[in-house]
Amino acid sequence: MNDNIIKLSGKDLTVEEVDRVSRYGYKIEITEEGIKRLKDSRQLVFDLVDSNIPVYGFNTGVGWNKDKAVFKDFFQEYNTNLIRSHSIAVEPEASIEEVRAVMLVRLNGLLYGCTGIQPEIALMYKEMINREVTPVLPERGSVGEGDIACLSHIGLTMIGEGEAYYKGVKMPALEALQQAGLEPVVLGPKDGLAIVSSNALAAGEGALVIKDVEELLDMADIIYALSLEGLNGNTSPLDKNTHKVRPFPGQSYSAERITKYLEGSYVWNPNWKKALQDPLSYRGSAHIHGSIRDALDYVKKYLTIQMNSSDDNPCLLLDERVIVSCSNFEPTTWVLGFEMLGIALGHLSKVSCYRSIKLGDPDFTGLPRFLAPSDNVLSFATLQKTYTALDAEIRHLSNPATTDFFSLAGDIEDHANNSPYVVQKTRKIVDNIRYILGIEAIHAVQAIDLRKDIHLGKGTKIAYDIIRKEIPFYDKDRNISIDIKKAYELMKNKKILSEVLKVIK
Amino acid sequence: MNDNIIKLSGKDLTVEEVDRVSRYGYKIEITEEGIKRLKDSRQLVFDLVDSNIPVYGFNTGVGWNKDKAVFKDFFQEYNTNLIRSHSIAVEPEASIEEVRAVMLVRLNGLLYGCTGIQPEIALMYKEMINREVTPVLPERGSVGEGDIACLSHIGLTMIGEGEAYYKGVKMPALEALQQAGLEPVVLGPKDGLAIVSSNALAAGEGALVIKDVEELLDMADIIYALSLEGLNGNTSPLDKNTHKVRPFPGQSYSAERITKYLEGSYVWNPNWKKALQDPLSYRGSAHIHGSIRDALDYVKKYLTIQMNSSDDNPCLLLDERVIVSCSNFEPTTWVLGFEMLGIALGHLSKVSCYRSIKLGDPDFTGLPRFLAPSDNVLSFATLQKTYTALDAEIRHLSNPATTDFFSLAGDIEDHANNSPYVVQKTRKIVDNIRYILGIEAIHAVQAIDLRKDIHLGKGTKIAYDIIRKEIPFYDKDRNISIDIKKAYELMKNKKILSEVLKVIK
Amino acid sequence: MNDNIIKLSGKDLTVEEVDRVSRYGYKIEITEEGIKRLKDSRQLVFDLVDSNIPVYGFNTGVGWNKDKAVFKDFFQEYNTNLIRSHSIAVEPEASIEEVRAVMLVRLNGLLYGCTGIQPEIALMYKEMINREVTPVLPERGSVGEGDIACLSHIGLTMIGEGEAYYKGVKMPALEALQQAGLEPVVLGPKDGLAIVSSNALAAGEGALVIKDVEELLDMADIIYALSLEGLNGNTSPLDKNTHKVRPFPGQSYSAERITKYLEGSYVWNPNWKKALQDPLSYRGSAHIHGSIRDALDYVKKYLTIQMNSSDDNPCLLLDERVIVSCSNFEPTTWVLGFEMLGIALGHLSKVSCYRSIKLGDPDFTGLPRFLAPSDNVLSFATLQKTYTALDAEIRHLSNPATTDFFSLAGDIEDHANNSPYVVQKTRKIVDNIRYILGIEAIHAVQAIDLRKDIHLGKGTKIAYDIIRKEIPFYDKDRNISIDIKKAYELMKNKKILSEVLKVIK
Amino acid sequence: MNDNIIKLSGKDLTVEEVDRVSRYGYKIEITEEGIKRLKDSRQLVFDLVDSNIPVYGFNTGVGWNKDKAVFKDFFQEYNTNLIRSHSIAVEPEASIEEVRAVMLVRLNGLLYGCTGIQPEIALMYKEMINREVTPVLPERGSVGEGDIACLSHIGLTMIGEGEAYYKGVKMPALEALQQAGLEPVVLGPKDGLAIVSSNALAAGEGALVIKDVEELLDMADIIYALSLEGLNGNTSPLDKNTHKVRPFPGQSYSAERITKYLEGSYVWNPNWKKALQDPLSYRGSAHIHGSIRDALDYVKKYLTIQMNSSDDNPCLLLDERVIVSCSNFEPTTWVLGFEMLGIALGHLSKVSCYRSIKLGDPDFTGLPRFLAPSDNVLSFATLQKTYTALDAEIRHLSNPATTDFFSLAGDIEDHANNSPYVVQKTRKIVDNIRYILGIEAIHAVQAIDLRKDIHLGKGTKIAYDIIRKEIPFYDKDRNISIDIKKAYELMKNKKILSEVLKVIK
Repeated sequence: MNDNIIKLSGKDLTVEEVDRVSRYGYKIEITEEGIKRLKDSRQLVFDLVDSNIPVYGFNTGVGWNKDKAVFKDFFQEYNTNLIRSHSIAVEPEASIEEVRAVMLVRLNGLLYGCTGIQPEIALMYKEMINREVTPVLPERGSVGEGDIACLSHIGLTMIGEGEAYYKGVKMPALEALQQAGLEPVVLGPKDGLAIVSSNALAAGEGALVIKDVEELLDMADIIYALSLEGLNGNTSPLDKNTHKVRPFPGQSYSAERITKYLEGSYVWNPNWKKALQDPLSYRGSAHIHGSIRDALDYVKKYLTIQMNSSDDNPCLLLDERVIVSCSNFEPTTWVLGFEMLGIALGHLSKVSCYRSIKLGDPDFTGLPRFLAPSDNVLSFATLQKTYTALDAEIRHLSNPATTDFFSLAGDIEDHANNSPYVVQKTRKIVDNIRYILGIEAIHAVQAIDLRKDIHLGKGTKIAYDIIRKEIPFYDKDRNISIDIKKAYELMKNKKILSEVLKVIK
Repeated sequence: MNDNIIKLSGKDLTVEEVDRVSRYGYKIEITEEGIKRLKDSRQLVFDLVDSNIPVYGFNTGVGWNKDKAVFKDFFQEYNTNLIRSHSIAVEPEASIEEVRAVMLVRLNGLLYGCTGIQPEIALMYKEMINREVTPVLPERGSVGEGDIACLSHIGLTMIGEGEAYYKGVKMPALEALQQAGLEPVVLGPKDGLAIVSSNALAAGEGALVIKDVEELLDMADIIYALSLEGLNGNTSPLDKNTHKVRPFPGQSYSAERITKYLEGSYVWNPNWKKALQDPLSYRGSAHIHGSIRDALDYVKKYLTIQMNSSDDNPCLLLDERVIVSCSNFEPTTWVLGFEMLGIALGHLSKVSCYRSIKLGDPDFTGLPRFLAPSDNVLSFATLQKTYTALDAEIRHLSNPATTDFFSLAGDIEDHANNSPYVVQKTRKIVDNIRYILGIEAIHAVQAIDLRKDIHLGKGTKIAYDIIRKEIPFYDKDRNISIDIKKAYELMKNKKILSEVLKVIK
Repeated sequence: MNDNIIKLSGKDLTVEEVDRVSRYGYKIEITEEGIKRLKDSRQLVFDLVDSNIPVYGFNTGVGWNKDKAVFKDFFQEYNTNLIRSHSIAVEPEASIEEVRAVMLVRLNGLLYGCTGIQPEIALMYKEMINREVTPVLPERGSVGEGDIACLSHIGLTMIGEGEAYYKGVKMPALEALQQAGLEPVVLGPKDGLAIVSSNALAAGEGALVIKDVEELLDMADIIYALSLEGLNGNTSPLDKNTHKVRPFPGQSYSAERITKYLEGSYVWNPNWKKALQDPLSYRGSAHIHGSIRDALDYVKKYLTIQMNSSDDNPCLLLDERVIVSCSNFEPTTWVLGFEMLGIALGHLSKVSCYRSIKLGDPDFTGLPRFLAPSDNVLSFATLQKTYTALDAEIRHLSNPATTDFFSLAGDIEDHANNSPYVVQKTRKIVDNIRYILGIEAIHAVQAIDLRKDIHLGKGTKIAYDIIRKEIPFYDKDRNISIDIKKAYELMKNKKILSEVLKVIK
Repeated sequence: MNDNIIKLSGKDLTVEEVDRVSRYGYKIEITEEGIKRLKDSRQLVFDLVDSNIPVYGFNTGVGWNKDKAVFKDFFQEYNTNLIRSHSIAVEPEASIEEVRAVMLVRLNGLLYGCTGIQPEIALMYKEMINREVTPVLPERGSVGEGDIACLSHIGLTMIGEGEAYYKGVKMPALEALQQAGLEPVVLGPKDGLAIVSSNALAAGEGALVIKDVEELLDMADIIYALSLEGLNGNTSPLDKNTHKVRPFPGQSYSAERITKYLEGSYVWNPNWKKALQDPLSYRGSAHIHGSIRDALDYVKKYLTIQMNSSDDNPCLLLDERVIVSCSNFEPTTWVLGFEMLGIALGHLSKVSCYRSIKLGDPDFTGLPRFLAPSDNVLSFATLQKTYTALDAEIRHLSNPATTDFFSLAGDIEDHANNSPYVVQKTRKIVDNIRYILGIEAIHAVQAIDLRKDIHLGKGTKIAYDIIRKEIPFYDKDRNISIDIKKAYELMKNKKILSEVLKVIK
């Protein structure tokens, strides 16, 4: 376990920090102002209730039942029932990493100070993260207007019910708490709602998807650079000055990175044998990767706001000392961003597929068809089916899902956005692209080897070496599905990326 | 293991038989005429080759490489390489049941007599099925113009490479063969292609999906009948004579079945408290379930033709004693049917969701809102999110995927249909509906209990009892996700169905 | 105007007859049994009302208002209000041909005898069709659970309100009636509902779409045959015996037709210069066209049942002398078919596009690239954008729409199917394909001319001559958009089809 | 015609200016620096050609033909042929307003200075705009990688071919030029490509769509405010402080605007009869409208960059005095934005529909069901079909289309984005929402009238008066389709908006 520490204030959590805590075991601490806001907001709730102001989920019921008084002495039972009856999500489970991300995001939201949760319960999130108690959280069942159906499963663990992981081992939740030296919480007024009424499932899973897309785009730039070397392609589309007159930020960024990866490469040599213009899948790669970066920027910007603001309803306002009914659980702004991102990633998939196709085509490479080292080797011919089949699936997944909902809860809940599913389908797209880029990488290094004695770029050489260590040259046919899996892993783990980034800043 | 036997001739395999062999362990035998066609077609290949007629995959290469002579003595190496280099599918694995269905369908196709495979290899399919050797078959990677990328993994097992299951245990393929008392095959000319060039993946998985949809529709009729009792709904839409003047076959069938399930039920009693007309989700259930039956009929009819005809290219014609290049691997007719079926199932999902919503609404039932037995019980309120979230996913999955493909293999393979993915997304829709119907069932029995002392139908009573044995009445809140899972299992296993069908013929 | 006559009985209307009446001015007559059923059912309604049986839309209100008594003496006012208040459809207008088809289908449905409409109003449909009075009918606004919102506009014309066409000229409806020698009808009990509550909009428009798809498929077979001659392609995929072992009905039919069109063509000559196997867009055309035929069969079969059965609710049963509440306005079975058909047509679009692409590619034709007669002619290069852009639109349109609906009318109408929109988007797909096939035709005849002195088939020669009469050989660049439009018209009007079919039976 | 003048520099054109020039007849002038860049870049082209540097479209061919020398003296013929042969777009025509927008955007791009067009031709755009010569421009046929197929039709007019509008009257292009006192241009080297190779079609049409969405959102805020008064809804979700703790920019903006429109309204009065929490379609309107604003911001930001940068290939770099092959015609960044915007507008459609549904529901309003003034009036009951049918169409249109393309031009053009179609389908969504909001407006004012004697807000009162002037209170049924059309027009023309904005800043 990691001893690095992230300080949480409710105001400045980043996607990178979510990645570190959920995947790399960084510990968390809460800032003093965070603690203060927790306490102040809890006190405010009590003050308001004492003034007989109706507070949803506190001295009223929930949803359609909102008009039913819930008397003070039934608080624990009521909130426990609320958690149990809202535990309605279905398989598959979110990964342990994801559940950690979800808890972290929820905790940060609580620190923002508009919830009024019992401070002890907020601290429970911290302890569960730090001590590695992770609830079993089935990830389907919420429509995104608050991720109630799923987040309740975190509540279950907190009260010692259901199942949880302790340091990666699944067990009854109560046992997990005990092994970690924790006690189940006692739910007080509004605590049930405070646990479940939040966008934290989609936001937490979404933060990890954003991190993954960032890394995927960095990988895509690197693999494209390798393919350009495999193709003996033109570098003019990387020309800095052409990007200056088309100032979309993403394309300049990608062009600059690719240029750096290719520093010192033979592709920069004047070479009369090059085509005047390469296929668009090569000529436009920096532009297209860049467009996905532009789309990603939108999502990241707004998801970061989500993680550092209030999604509470009702919303406690500390300064104004009031509690207000509102719709701040509406995450539509960034859910739309994930829909866009999925479509954008479809373009990445397409260009990667076309780059691989071109590497198998002698008209574009001058190399043997399907990069066969000899006539008896068939391997790269059929491989086209694999990546285009995965692309068809991406095309399918990139259809929108955010506007498909029912009017629920006695027609009160007549809007939704399906944020969890939208994030989850984007995650699936990302995973498919890892295969597609991995297969492109297999093509690129094969083409490079067939060219013999060419000088690779400063960054691409590192990538080449790592790939070739795992996947040797195809001199004869072998069970290629094994190599596909290895290439996929290389796109997923950060081996190539971290080695390249050590050298290319 | 089951000792029942199915006889395979290549001409009359049914969806029901695929279900029995793949899931219930029925053994297979091959008819004499099947064996004869196998031998005759192999002989014909040799005769043709002796006449120097070019035979694709035999004395020519494959795909873009089709113009490259493959000399006779390289047959084993060539075909082994073909299997290895075409083993390019990626996760997830098809289930053991599905792989058995795939092998069965492929074997039946071989018996049809247009392939010319080595008879020993055809027999290997039989032995592997009967002795429970099941290749590990990753199910993504084929675009459906032949399921080459995936079927090659069956070939891998046959030559003793890769992994396989023996009686449910995963192990190296060679070991699985040995434990089953089998030897790896020696591939001769055209055998590689014969193994991989077929629609058997999608057809085999598809046959099981069809069986599942049939059972799902039977379950849907039963659950609807229960819900009608829960609602105290009108039976006039079941009136046989109204269906006679609207002669779509499905709606009459469903209406008749539902009528039988409800035989003896209190809902037939004249009751002035009933609404004049129920919501369409009740009034139209027989019609809508019936429409799905009509769509299913289309798919089943054509998939049955697929399973009992030739998908070979080139195609050996025994009577004409020729081998002809063709496109009989085009399965578009029934792939379109699966697309339609997925959309059709979207309607089933919607009506089931709306029926559950109505059961929670006092305006339609006269029962407590959300079927709460007392004011403190919250359970059925939030449950709406679960099933509508799953419906949103179904809506997403019901988008088509069959026309999204690339032009591959040097622009020779410029058509595809994505049959495996289309079948697999339909399978996913089916699975989601099991949850949705299961939750409807939970509503229906709760509503029935709240009505007290009503008399259920002959079929619905059986269903009610089985459900209530697993899922008791909600008198107080509990972790409802456990009950959802149980209800899902009841929709999937055939407990209710088989018990009801024992009584209702 | 045409003097041919179609006899309507309510029981045997065909798609072909709908085509003839709506587009070719065939007159209609009603059989005696049709008239009898009209009268008997009207009498039955009165008998039932006299027995104080509640009849929806007769002695009850409509929809959510169904519980409000409507007293007998308010019948005319009530039904007039019903027509006015249900006239809620929005632009664009259905074409005159389509509105005629809609009226014909509605009339035939009335003759089936389950409606109980005033016979005089049924006869009004006949007169309006025969005398060419055609209501202005905006075609958007119905969700298909009955096409109420749109069909009411026919009612408006009948009572002399709104606008209508008389012999193609738009005018106030009253004037149109007068010019045609007709009087507005006086609405009696249930007449409003009888006019509006039917699937006739989608069914009428759908019948014409089906006819159009049939003709489109015949054209596609012809154009493919021409392209095969342009390519100098292989005929082996047309081999009758290969289709016998793959007995999907459509592919055999298309293969047989194409074979006939090509009778006597040079493509049948043994020619060693041919590729061993053509691209799938050529090799699989008969199969793919055939799959669309298979899908079309499904739709046509069930739409024909729709046109000759009852979609009434409530449903009068003459034999049983009762009126029953039901859901016979559920057209989901064939709406699903139109969804499938749209997806199927996407395959037609794709193969046609790929065939055009191949005709521009010297690697496949041995002809100049982009079929340029000399280096200075650019025409066929960019044309690829036009047809692939139209294909992208088809891909978009082929997404399903049938399950996207709201719960309406106080949550009573919680199912719908969007049949009008589903039919209309299919119609749009068909229209786009006319351009795509038209452009393929331009390619095919250009390739044929460049081959010089080849002998065309018996059918293809006729098609070739008609095309070339409109669109001369490209010897230099010209405004090609004019030719595209001409080619489109040739695909739409039946000139080629009727000339070819005169010779090829 | 308007005498206002917009100055074009190539660097600072705004969406608002595009709106003014194309729709309100503002004249344009070109700044001196714009002229200078035009001249300098033309000179640079000549200098480069003199140095024998290959310049695509200048001393080389185009596309796959790019390797063919085009000799200097064939420039006019070559470029004329290029225009003719690229004139391949098909119906429907873009509107006159849109074509003006397209020409304006293209002209501004030329002034940016990376094209090297003949300055006389650039000036021709200016003259055609100012003198109201508008080419007939069919808007389908481009795949967005440059809108070549469509923009060529502008070139046709410039050389006096094809058809054009002069002051709104269609005529032969040559005649239109002559009537406007213009001469056809003489095309020189690279001019053909300069005219056609640009994203100006999608960008020009897109700019108008953006303007329309901005106005639609302002209208949506106003109509929502009216509906809130119709519902007697809660204002707490407008609370400024709740938006401060959820700092998505759009929701704060909408909440602030709505608050202003409602200034002085009775809805702010404490009223114990209000529900504690309104349906989400009311509670979340500011949030959801705001999310669409956030999505719109993305598109507007990047489209503005598009309009003020280079989409040329090859790209002239004035400072560096080189010409570089690149992919700056890739507009994917903002095409993705339009895809997102279409999905976002789906949410607007949904909430507007649900607000109308709620206004018809006594449980939420306390008013008569379907806002009927008396029992005999049916009007608002069926109206639900109209707007939900249009919403279903929006749902369909919101599916993505940007990744559906072929590999074209000898596999060189293997990326596209369908920008024109993506913009056009978004435009269609916008138009549908005008109906939906218009119908909501009809509901809102009916509900307001039924409440009697309530005091409306400062802004809503103005809107109310304008609507009521066109559409009187429903005291009895009438042909409601006429009112729907009027309401649609009110959403489209700016009458309400401009009157309200005069008072509410």
